[in-house]
Amino acid sequence: MAFETLTIVGVGLIGGSIGLAAKQTGAARRVVGVGRDERTLARAVASGAIDSATTDVRTGVAQADLVIICTPVDRIAADVLMAASAVPPKAVITDAGSTKGNILRALHGKMPPGRAHFVGSHPLAGSEKKGAANARADLFGDRVVVVTPSDDTDAEATAFVELFWRTLGARVLRMDPFEHDRALAITSHLPHAAASALAAVTPLEWLALTAGGFRDSTRIAAGDPELWAAIFEANREAVLAATDQFIERMTAFRAAVAAGDHAALVHGLAEGKKVRDALGS
Amino acid sequence: MAFETLTIVGVGLIGGSIGLAAKQTGAARRVVGVGRDERTLARAVASGAIDSATTDVRTGVAQADLVIICTPVDRIAADVLMAASAVPPKAVITDAGSTKGNILRALHGKMPPGRAHFVGSHPLAGSEKKGAANARADLFGDRVVVVTPSDDTDAEATAFVELFWRTLGARVLRMDPFEHDRALAITSHLPHAAASALAAVTPLEWLALTAGGFRDSTRIAAGDPELWAAIFEANREAVLAATDQFIERMTAFRAAVAAGDHAALVHGLAEGKKVRDALGS
Repeated sequence: MAFETLTIVGVGLIGGSIGLAAKQTGAARRVVGVGRDERTLARAVASGAIDSATTDVRTGVAQADLVIICTPVDRIAADVLMAASAVPPKAVITDAGSTKGNILRALHGKMPPGRAHFVGSHPLAGSEKKGAANARADLFGDRVVVVTPSDDTDAEATAFVELFWRTLGARVLRMDPFEHDRALAITSHLPHAAASALAAVTPLEWLALTAGGFRDSTRIAAGDPELWAAIFEANREAVLAATDQFIERMTAFRAAVAAGDHAALVHGLAEGKKVRDALGS
Repeated sequence: MAFETLTIVGVGLIGGSIGLAAKQTGAARRVVGVGRDERTLARAVASGAIDSATTDVRTGVAQADLVIICTPVDRIAADVLMAASAVPPKAVITDAGSTKGNILRALHGKMPPGRAHFVGSHPLAGSEKKGAANARADLFGDRVVVVTPSDDTDAEATAFVELFWRTLGARVLRMDPFEHDRALAITSHLPHAAASALAAVTPLEWLALTAGGFRDSTRIAAGDPELWAAIFEANREAVLAATDQFIERMTAFRAAVAAGDHAALVHGLAEGKKVRDALGS
């Protein structure tokens, strides 16, 4: 795969890594970066993540074959519409957001007809570190990227986006956008909320009494609060359902401890172990 | 530090690692292992973790200067009493259990007077892997070992136990046994319960949609259900209090998501991030 111009809107960890990977694999001949902070953009040019930069979305996408919106989830829909109003005919727009249904709902009936195609994407790659300074060309290597066309998404545009991610080394999973949101509420959003709560209830003076278990189970609590608040809000219904399931489970655990119900405790822990063992180490 | 005979009761991951470390550092000239399974003991002798083995606690401790009980937390007190009835005069007995108050309560008024001294220990080292096959001489290197004398614990015995752990490379923290249990409920037992619950609410077919965050935050859910059930039961009151705090925090998170209260969400996540950032990566 090789096309002329890729435009990345939002050159942080994900956007910067896409730029590095697209250039290293030769997927795009030219990578344009769009951002709000000129110093950040200058550093992304210097690091080779992008070839040129602008702070204006419409200018940045004017020659794009593919646009990837890598802004926070509460800004993606607006950025897609802005890009759609200025891309060349037949350009494809995708994104890298952790939630998909909210974007579809916000775009519904608003895309300029016959101009650009939008296909949602979610690369399951990231880090508690953020910013283009931590970008890596191999961030997507062997990672899953979920691509979420809906019933009326253009099939060629979907295939183009899937091929792009595969070119960067990712494994592509195609999935319904709302099913994606329900799954990610359980596999990503809830774990973040739980890790944050575990850290928050720990007095600083007891950090000396932590070992690898605490370190691992709270690692993602170091993530950016604004970004994560936006994700929880964007996936509100599924996050509420996942949180209810989790609180119910913790309440059952509490009841088993209170009652000294050894069999119930072992049974519950064995259910968790079965799932975790299936994932591998 | 060098003394004649160390006896390890329970030659699993922790007990086996203590044997390897004691021999590598020259802390003990001879290491005796006590266990229930003769094949496991034979393998521990073969791997060099212990020099000789027996299935009888009283035989195993008959010449011990130091005895370390490494059995599950619900068996430690009984093993301490068994060892105390057969050790030479002035021998010191310690343990490696994750809970301390339950052992003190069980031993209260039952130690044979003027014979052995008991001092509680808890090495904050371990793994979701278990068994002597995973034992490592460096398991305690730069790890914290909490030593928990109570008001009537012999000062020389406490100093002897602390010196032993330091000889194995550990950093020793001295702490009240009940304060230890409250702290560990938050820093170890609650994270285990949460990790297990996160894994348990995840359908197997969604494991393909997990990334590093889920992997890290659920890793300890692979631990042994029987061992962990015993830990929760042994530290019942502190685990209940920690679980209540955590459920309260998750309930507040749920309320903030339901209300779309962005400021409350960001504030809560920032509290968790502050604690996690203080720990370092």
